[in-house]
Amino acid sequence: MTNDGAIILFTIAYIFVQILLDSLKRCRARRQRWNVRASEMSKNTLNPIRAIVDGMKLTPNPEKPMIALSIGDPTVFGNLPTDDSVLQAMKDAIDSHKFNGYAPSVGYLQSREAVANFYSQAGAPLEAKDVILTSGCSQAIELAISALCNPGDNILVPCPGFSLYKTLAVSVGVQVKFYNLLPEKSWEVDLQHLESLIDDRTTCLIVNNPSNPCGSVFTKEHLRNILAVASRHCIPILADEIYGDMVFPSCEFHSLANLSSDVPILSCGGLAKRWLVPGWRMGWILIHDRNNIFGSEIREALVKLSQRILGACTVVQGALESILNNTQAEFYQSTIGFLKSNSEICFAELSTVPGLNPVMPSGAMYLMVGIEMEHFPEFQNDVDFTERLVTEQSVFCLPATAFEYPNFFRIVVTVPEEMMVEACGRIREFCARHYRPLSQESNDLDQ
Amino acid sequence: MTNDGAIILFTIAYIFVQILLDSLKRCRARRQRWNVRASEMSKNTLNPIRAIVDGMKLTPNPEKPMIALSIGDPTVFGNLPTDDSVLQAMKDAIDSHKFNGYAPSVGYLQSREAVANFYSQAGAPLEAKDVILTSGCSQAIELAISALCNPGDNILVPCPGFSLYKTLAVSVGVQVKFYNLLPEKSWEVDLQHLESLIDDRTTCLIVNNPSNPCGSVFTKEHLRNILAVASRHCIPILADEIYGDMVFPSCEFHSLANLSSDVPILSCGGLAKRWLVPGWRMGWILIHDRNNIFGSEIREALVKLSQRILGACTVVQGALESILNNTQAEFYQSTIGFLKSNSEICFAELSTVPGLNPVMPSGAMYLMVGIEMEHFPEFQNDVDFTERLVTEQSVFCLPATAFEYPNFFRIVVTVPEEMMVEACGRIREFCARHYRPLSQESNDLDQ
Repeated sequence: MTNDGAIILFTIAYIFVQILLDSLKRCRARRQRWNVRASEMSKNTLNPIRAIVDGMKLTPNPEKPMIALSIGDPTVFGNLPTDDSVLQAMKDAIDSHKFNGYAPSVGYLQSREAVANFYSQAGAPLEAKDVILTSGCSQAIELAISALCNPGDNILVPCPGFSLYKTLAVSVGVQVKFYNLLPEKSWEVDLQHLESLIDDRTTCLIVNNPSNPCGSVFTKEHLRNILAVASRHCIPILADEIYGDMVFPSCEFHSLANLSSDVPILSCGGLAKRWLVPGWRMGWILIHDRNNIFGSEIREALVKLSQRILGACTVVQGALESILNNTQAEFYQSTIGFLKSNSEICFAELSTVPGLNPVMPSGAMYLMVGIEMEHFPEFQNDVDFTERLVTEQSVFCLPATAFEYPNFFRIVVTVPEEMMVEACGRIREFCARHYRPLSQESNDLDQ
Repeated sequence: MTNDGAIILFTIAYIFVQILLDSLKRCRARRQRWNVRASEMSKNTLNPIRAIVDGMKLTPNPEKPMIALSIGDPTVFGNLPTDDSVLQAMKDAIDSHKFNGYAPSVGYLQSREAVANFYSQAGAPLEAKDVILTSGCSQAIELAISALCNPGDNILVPCPGFSLYKTLAVSVGVQVKFYNLLPEKSWEVDLQHLESLIDDRTTCLIVNNPSNPCGSVFTKEHLRNILAVASRHCIPILADEIYGDMVFPSCEFHSLANLSSDVPILSCGGLAKRWLVPGWRMGWILIHDRNNIFGSEIREALVKLSQRILGACTVVQGALESILNNTQAEFYQSTIGFLKSNSEICFAELSTVPGLNPVMPSGAMYLMVGIEMEHFPEFQNDVDFTERLVTEQSVFCLPATAFEYPNFFRIVVTVPEEMMVEACGRIREFCARHYRPLSQESNDLDQ
């Protein structure tokens, strides 16, 4: 074969291979059929409350009207309206024509100033630069977790606790470690357990005070003990204080930041609960960082993340200053008085029901009730128990498995008083019907 | 050594090693000092507009009042107020006391029904179940990207295009591939280029029509060609149609979904632009999926993701039905008439400025202007050019580098007419001062 022949053959072979490669590439590049799959993130976004409630067979007794003690929304029964001054502030904001355009992604300066002034304390001063307005307290918690944690890190979350912490963390690949709250100590943190969970990938401790679902309010001393753990291990705190100041007159709310001299704290709050407008989606992060540990890095992270989707509705932002400054003390007092009275009714009623152990709350809008499952052998667990409570008595309480805390259920105490009384009576009837004394106890009685 | 001696020795050694390991573990577990770092996600959340504008030295000429043609917010100058009926709908929603509590995470059924009815078309029917209400169109885009894409996937994004697509995608590890729009063809998509970018990790094609920053509106035929590419490669479309219906009378807006028989489409929109209330954060996703390609999987993904942080403010949701149904056609016509007139003024003025090539828009609120950089040798690029335009003439236009498209700048045409005229005059003056004919041209003139 001549050289020329070889070159020609080689060239032909080369072109042939190129064509093959090209069509292979095209084949790989082109999908042959539709196959649209949901993302891993969406698959990892789990809502335990939905997962549990959707799995329950909730068929009320047709002879009894349904009473839902399950919904953490104080507005549903109409007995706890927001203050007229709050509504007027919104209408004034609308009439001003000043709040229709884009606000800065962290919120209007004036609104942030109003929040800073409202929450500033001697031990924890705040300026506008320390406030980030968000679309509800949920976005505040989301931004805080997203700013502090990478996939593979872990955060410490109260158990029982609000399920959103886990939902948000897991959806972005952050692991959740549950630390125990102790019902016998008014739901104080089991500090030893908390401390034992910390490792070198722990990037955030979530403290929820007052607590959902417990309604507990930590003492100053207990908060100092929590801060000591965080300080010893250099873990920043996300303080979910959305129920701040919603405490019964007998006790006092202390913000974590006001007690801390070194631990950097992102305190999350909003209008939702204290002003009884959860749908308005007006939340905030208060950045407490007197020792400059967050420094500019975390502040910039929060600002950057706030630019992904802008935060709160500008009309509510425009009304914020007036809402904070012009709502009369009587409004808060009346809400708290009602919540306390309803809690007392519920606690007194259920305390005398054999097989139930309610824990008296000190604030927020919830009350947890322990079920002595050994006395209710018909039911496997709290989900089973609360499901049958619907079937027989048309009363729905959220099983505390939704808060990673089996054998309890949560009662929302915002329902009208007569409804609360009726619901407690039905729960008593239900328990009386299903309660079984333990064989040991029966023996004792026999003797 | 006896056996016993060996056992004792071994036991001592074992205990010693355990103690060592334990203290090592404790040492590893305990941070010795504060070291709070921002997350990778926050570091990957980049806002190109901020990055560019913050890097510019924007010192206006003290002798000329500043005119900002840079802000994509139609409300800033007060000349484009929303309709009174829109404000009244909000006040009615407040007075009803019905919209203070939590809405479902995807929005009130009645409000979703209203959106479905408003946007339903013969070729693209919608029901309430096809609508997800969001906190602004930004959250709509965020949910859509998060539902469709995993880290490592890529999405196709117009160039020039709205910077948020890249910001959102990159922050969750999704790669962005830019497909070219062609200024000489009224910013139509370079279909060949678009098609060449598709590979087996392409999970979404973003189409923005009418376009920010171009103000272009695609013809029915061109939209069909885009759909053909998506169909051929089985790529779902995210249609950003926030400027839908904001088109000049001479042309017509066609929603992508109404032209597609197979490609599944998430159409994102909201109240922001057409109703001139961008701060209210009322957006939506319209799910178009007649061939059931998204199926329940993508719908469920969107619902789950919507539960991470709840969406739009309930007051705005409550007002939505009335806003959509009771805003008179005259309101839209008047807005569009104004935008068209201002665009024509701006285009006519700048068309006769040597060195500038404005592209006449057909809708939205923007106009892009090409800079023949070779005629402005003093300036390195569009950032340089627009920076000096501020220094000398106190006119600020956004350099199109912010849209990944150098050597153009974007003009927002929502400013009052007299301001637009004045700004164009100053741009003319600025260009006249810095324009240099090419040497070839000078030679031509010499001959």
